[in-house]
Amino acid sequence: MGERQATLAEKEDSLSPAVPSLLHLPLCRQTNPVPGLRYRNLGKSGLRVSNVGLGTWVTFSAPISEEVAEDIIVMAFESGINVFDLSDGYCGPRAEVSLGRILRQRRWRRSSYIVITKIYWSYRSEERGLSRKHIIESIRASLDRLQLDYIDVVLIHRADPMCPMEEVVRAMNHVIDHGWIMYWGTSRWSSVEISEAYNNCRQFNCPLPICEQSEYHFLCREKIEISLPEVYNKLGVGLMTWSPLTMGFSASKGEETFPNFHRMSFKFSTVTWPDDEAAAATKENAYVPRMSAEEVQRQNGKLREISLMAERFGCTSSQLAIAWTLKNEHVHSVLIGAISPEQLYEHLQALQIVPKLSAAVMLDLERVLDNKPIRPPMISTLAMR
Amino acid sequence: MGERQATLAEKEDSLSPAVPSLLHLPLCRQTNPVPGLRYRNLGKSGLRVSNVGLGTWVTFSAPISEEVAEDIIVMAFESGINVFDLSDGYCGPRAEVSLGRILRQRRWRRSSYIVITKIYWSYRSEERGLSRKHIIESIRASLDRLQLDYIDVVLIHRADPMCPMEEVVRAMNHVIDHGWIMYWGTSRWSSVEISEAYNNCRQFNCPLPICEQSEYHFLCREKIEISLPEVYNKLGVGLMTWSPLTMGFSASKGEETFPNFHRMSFKFSTVTWPDDEAAAATKENAYVPRMSAEEVQRQNGKLREISLMAERFGCTSSQLAIAWTLKNEHVHSVLIGAISPEQLYEHLQALQIVPKLSAAVMLDLERVLDNKPIRPPMISTLAMR
Amino acid sequence: MGERQATLAEKEDSLSPAVPSLLHLPLCRQTNPVPGLRYRNLGKSGLRVSNVGLGTWVTFSAPISEEVAEDIIVMAFESGINVFDLSDGYCGPRAEVSLGRILRQRRWRRSSYIVITKIYWSYRSEERGLSRKHIIESIRASLDRLQLDYIDVVLIHRADPMCPMEEVVRAMNHVIDHGWIMYWGTSRWSSVEISEAYNNCRQFNCPLPICEQSEYHFLCREKIEISLPEVYNKLGVGLMTWSPLTMGFSASKGEETFPNFHRMSFKFSTVTWPDDEAAAATKENAYVPRMSAEEVQRQNGKLREISLMAERFGCTSSQLAIAWTLKNEHVHSVLIGAISPEQLYEHLQALQIVPKLSAAVMLDLERVLDNKPIRPPMISTLAMR
Amino acid sequence: MGERQATLAEKEDSLSPAVPSLLHLPLCRQTNPVPGLRYRNLGKSGLRVSNVGLGTWVTFSAPISEEVAEDIIVMAFESGINVFDLSDGYCGPRAEVSLGRILRQRRWRRSSYIVITKIYWSYRSEERGLSRKHIIESIRASLDRLQLDYIDVVLIHRADPMCPMEEVVRAMNHVIDHGWIMYWGTSRWSSVEISEAYNNCRQFNCPLPICEQSEYHFLCREKIEISLPEVYNKLGVGLMTWSPLTMGFSASKGEETFPNFHRMSFKFSTVTWPDDEAAAATKENAYVPRMSAEEVQRQNGKLREISLMAERFGCTSSQLAIAWTLKNEHVHSVLIGAISPEQLYEHLQALQIVPKLSAAVMLDLERVLDNKPIRPPMISTLAMR
Repeated sequence: MGERQATLAEKEDSLSPAVPSLLHLPLCRQTNPVPGLRYRNLGKSGLRVSNVGLGTWVTFSAPISEEVAEDIIVMAFESGINVFDLSDGYCGPRAEVSLGRILRQRRWRRSSYIVITKIYWSYRSEERGLSRKHIIESIRASLDRLQLDYIDVVLIHRADPMCPMEEVVRAMNHVIDHGWIMYWGTSRWSSVEISEAYNNCRQFNCPLPICEQSEYHFLCREKIEISLPEVYNKLGVGLMTWSPLTMGFSASKGEETFPNFHRMSFKFSTVTWPDDEAAAATKENAYVPRMSAEEVQRQNGKLREISLMAERFGCTSSQLAIAWTLKNEHVHSVLIGAISPEQLYEHLQALQIVPKLSAAVMLDLERVLDNKPIRPPMISTLAMR
Repeated sequence: MGERQATLAEKEDSLSPAVPSLLHLPLCRQTNPVPGLRYRNLGKSGLRVSNVGLGTWVTFSAPISEEVAEDIIVMAFESGINVFDLSDGYCGPRAEVSLGRILRQRRWRRSSYIVITKIYWSYRSEERGLSRKHIIESIRASLDRLQLDYIDVVLIHRADPMCPMEEVVRAMNHVIDHGWIMYWGTSRWSSVEISEAYNNCRQFNCPLPICEQSEYHFLCREKIEISLPEVYNKLGVGLMTWSPLTMGFSASKGEETFPNFHRMSFKFSTVTWPDDEAAAATKENAYVPRMSAEEVQRQNGKLREISLMAERFGCTSSQLAIAWTLKNEHVHSVLIGAISPEQLYEHLQALQIVPKLSAAVMLDLERVLDNKPIRPPMISTLAMR
Repeated sequence: MGERQATLAEKEDSLSPAVPSLLHLPLCRQTNPVPGLRYRNLGKSGLRVSNVGLGTWVTFSAPISEEVAEDIIVMAFESGINVFDLSDGYCGPRAEVSLGRILRQRRWRRSSYIVITKIYWSYRSEERGLSRKHIIESIRASLDRLQLDYIDVVLIHRADPMCPMEEVVRAMNHVIDHGWIMYWGTSRWSSVEISEAYNNCRQFNCPLPICEQSEYHFLCREKIEISLPEVYNKLGVGLMTWSPLTMGFSASKGEETFPNFHRMSFKFSTVTWPDDEAAAATKENAYVPRMSAEEVQRQNGKLREISLMAERFGCTSSQLAIAWTLKNEHVHSVLIGAISPEQLYEHLQALQIVPKLSAAVMLDLERVLDNKPIRPPMISTLAMR
Repeated sequence: MGERQATLAEKEDSLSPAVPSLLHLPLCRQTNPVPGLRYRNLGKSGLRVSNVGLGTWVTFSAPISEEVAEDIIVMAFESGINVFDLSDGYCGPRAEVSLGRILRQRRWRRSSYIVITKIYWSYRSEERGLSRKHIIESIRASLDRLQLDYIDVVLIHRADPMCPMEEVVRAMNHVIDHGWIMYWGTSRWSSVEISEAYNNCRQFNCPLPICEQSEYHFLCREKIEISLPEVYNKLGVGLMTWSPLTMGFSASKGEETFPNFHRMSFKFSTVTWPDDEAAAATKENAYVPRMSAEEVQRQNGKLREISLMAERFGCTSSQLAIAWTLKNEHVHSVLIGAISPEQLYEHLQALQIVPKLSAAVMLDLERVLDNKPIRPPMISTLAMR
């Protein structure tokens, strides 16, 4: 499969009838995309994203030096990845400052990468929620840190029930109109909230959100497998996923059992564990399921079994997790993280495991997981009379 | 109550998952909001305003030095107030120039305060009324004086029956589009005029006004208590109020009787007193009730009784007036003024009186005021046949 | 009447509650408007124009020195005129360059005057007609010459049947959106063309044209008196008029007979005289009535009689013409020209003749003119069956 | 015919009532347009294009020196051509850089020429298709190379079935709004795709595409003669055509037989020849007809016969081809190319052949070509029941 892919360099040359950008933008992607890397339209938009994107959660966090971070970015770019997602969970504003610096210094063509960042706000701040003021100020601050002319995609992290959707879509229209961003999307929105945004866009003639970014892994499947495909089919919203398992923490093979997985995920995951007091206290996600002690043991058992399956494939749990996610055709791009070029390389090998996931293997995994989400039966109101 | 509120500094830190603005904006609010200070969405917008805002009527007027003015602004900010309202009744353009200078020099995060200013025009000037030209020129001049990138909210002071509402909403859309202002609102508009603006916004796909600023106090209740709640419920327009009693003139306890109250209010109030010739001559507000001599005496009696009630609570009439206003849930922010940090401190203590205003106390006040506005009965046209 | 008008200076001061622009804009109108000068809303817009405006046809033409031109502009401004209309028939681009220079040097508040200029195109140029390209390029060139931040009103001189109205209204929307102009209007458009523009504005959500500029005088009445009032009543389009008699050519009393009137008007007027070959050759206005030799003699007779009436009033024909135009309540502003401050002064005296035009005098004039336009009777198609 | 045309210089002077651009733009077109050159509105837009435009395919390609290229551009401009089309098939970004430099150095009035460029993308690049990002980046890059304030018309080369039309029309609206381009159009779109664009423009209130650029010559007639007139009549989209025969390759008389014609056209033409492997391999146009060997021989025969007819007229095949195209009233502008001023001169002589193409001659040509496209009969579904 890899052999039949033209190298990107060849592609550039064959861009018929001409490659107008060669003159002013000196450097273009000159290396081969890794085997299995593909480009897909993000939802029903025209934007083509690599099926694997780089999440920079850990890349720009404290223990990683600027040099290593730059090596990771360069390897990702040279591997054909064109999605760079900024989620400043660990690293705060440093991520934007550093990524911006690297992108400028490398002088890659602006058209060859896609920068995605987010607008955060918190229920816990009484002072500020989501608002036109907050949206515009956040994006101006991000541009200031990135030192780019525009951001490709800005995602709004969580919807604010107190802010009218009209205000949100008009503000996104405003920043798109001003050329500060190209597209907007959502992160951790329910399909009902996405539909509301869609309807408001239609009502006020504003550009539609193009994607939702969601958690998706062995233990968190319902939203991606049940409710979001409808959003994709009806509204055209694309899906981009992340998983605590693939964020790039250094976990040796076999270590992905509950305590580690838990430690890694607690700050981000929508899955809340019983002893996860901090998360429980916030009560931000009323719909987050709390697990009983025995439930936790059961989930741990699954992770251990999957770890063993991965060993049989000669890969890590993370690699298996990435490959398994890529098998879902509704997922347009899977975000992966890395604390070193080596780990990024390791994660990218997952692309070659995808073809090995035969129907039989997938069935085996399904049996182990035993959590295939099922659409609740339509209740006929007629029958209830 | 104060103890249970997190300090703003703590809130900033807990802003999950990150506080991106820390890098470029050095100073953030580091002090405790005063007890009782709360943030509310202004109408059905996403903008969160402190329930008490600073009206700068007197702060930047002639007898107050720049140093004292700055002290007042700083104390307001450090008390948690995020609304700074510019009404240049006394101080003219100096208010904008001075406030702008202070805000820039203090280097507070732009997201931590909300600047509100107004567009004035006069019936008495034959040369100019409200128009697209006047709206744009006024806002450009305000920005020039404030030296800010944008104003958060601009209010149009009075509607002009000679200027089509389409021209007004298109002009406001224009200045919002250009990023000069974030939101627009109204000041001294009737609910019919606000509805007309709302309908024009809907027709021409322009952003809605988010608030009306009105006079509201013991002797001026009808508009706020009867007609504006409907505007809030149906159209989402928020309410911001001011009162001559709380504008910050230095009045000792017991002095808030008629002559002083009158002196303070005549320039601004919609309530016109019989000897208020200047105001009467303008005939700007046809609906302003003119009082007879005995009516004035009756109103004076009320103010004196209220003054006595305030003494029983161990507070001033102004404090009681602020607390009483805050009891009205339709009021999203009450503007107060001050000629010194001490007076501002005194006014802010009113926040702690609010919980003391029990149902019994409110009933007592109602008995004294004896002016609870009543919605006129719907007249059935059917019955008239 | 003059005594009862407040001086403009007083008005500025009484602008309640403040005059924010005093700070940054040093000079404001400090003199009295001439008696009879009034401000009216231009059509159903919010823009207030003086009932007399300065047309600069001759002011900036070759024989007039820059000093005299400046004196004329200053006198107009100090007389209370706020409309400065650029029609570069005689003077070409010099008018814009010179007016811009004077306005900047005088440092008058930008809000105290209204600059009106036009977009010209010609049927005779095969190369270019009216188009988005031409509209934008014309306005950019005008701004370049005027050296102003924006033009208050731009009029499109003649509609182009070859250019879709959608393109015109979208282009005007574009230049308004960019802040290059405040309002747009038309010049020499038929009421059908204005209606088409209006409908296109409504369809594409673009700002409406606010005025039509038309020729109006003793011998050219039908459009203003019959068809445009409907456009005003239904669509809100205001009227601004000009007349060859009042363009500012130096004509002594009694000289306004046919040959002179003809000489002055042939380049601009829609009335075509039999020996006016140049105009006839262009065939630009198919609906221009051609006069027979006896018809010319008849019209000449009228002008001579009017000249005698003017003498009885102790004024010139030009003054009588201006006063007569101002009696028409549908006319919001009458443009007058001048080759010297003295002539401008003379023309402005016409404002004091208006009250002298009693019903009896108007009837006398009507008898002399004998050309009161009559709306053709509605033809019932029913009756024709 | 040539004698009766006013020179352009005269036209400029007679531009009544004034030529405002004379002041700031020193040079204007001062020479005579060549006989037969006319200006037409491009589709139902207000933009007037010369009936012959310059296609710069070969002008800026490798073997042509900058001096010769400049001579060609100057001759085109002085001949009255106002359309300069950039199709960087041969010359890549150099075309934009060079043309921009010449236009600036010559200091021609910006209103006297129309620059048309294209947005290219490729099916073969997995990384990028048509998208908002690509459209904006392409146009910014073109402006950067051209060093102009704006491009007059940008054509999207091929529609992308993977990119929603809403995204395309919104992006074109964006670049028009920002003043980067004046108009947009299409190139190689089917009439169904153009209709879809039209409908999306109407739905989202965006400016319509004004023209389609298509191949049109003796052997490629169906789209222009059958489907595009409908697009013109219903949607107002204008037609601009090109032909491999008239691109400016140096072909002596009689040489336009198959092998040469083939060699010239294979890179651009939608007509694919059997040995044209490269084009066949791309499979970009599924609807491109592949010819059998005998079909090729038949087409060759036609070209040879036409070559003989041209000789009888004393002209080249290219000249005959241009004249024949101009006879089609639906074609608003025909693009021609040249490798030297001499060749451009030769091509322009074709304008004088047009009047010689009598009905009899056209019938003769039709007989030789034997490929008049016929609208397929409407199939009544009723009859099929």
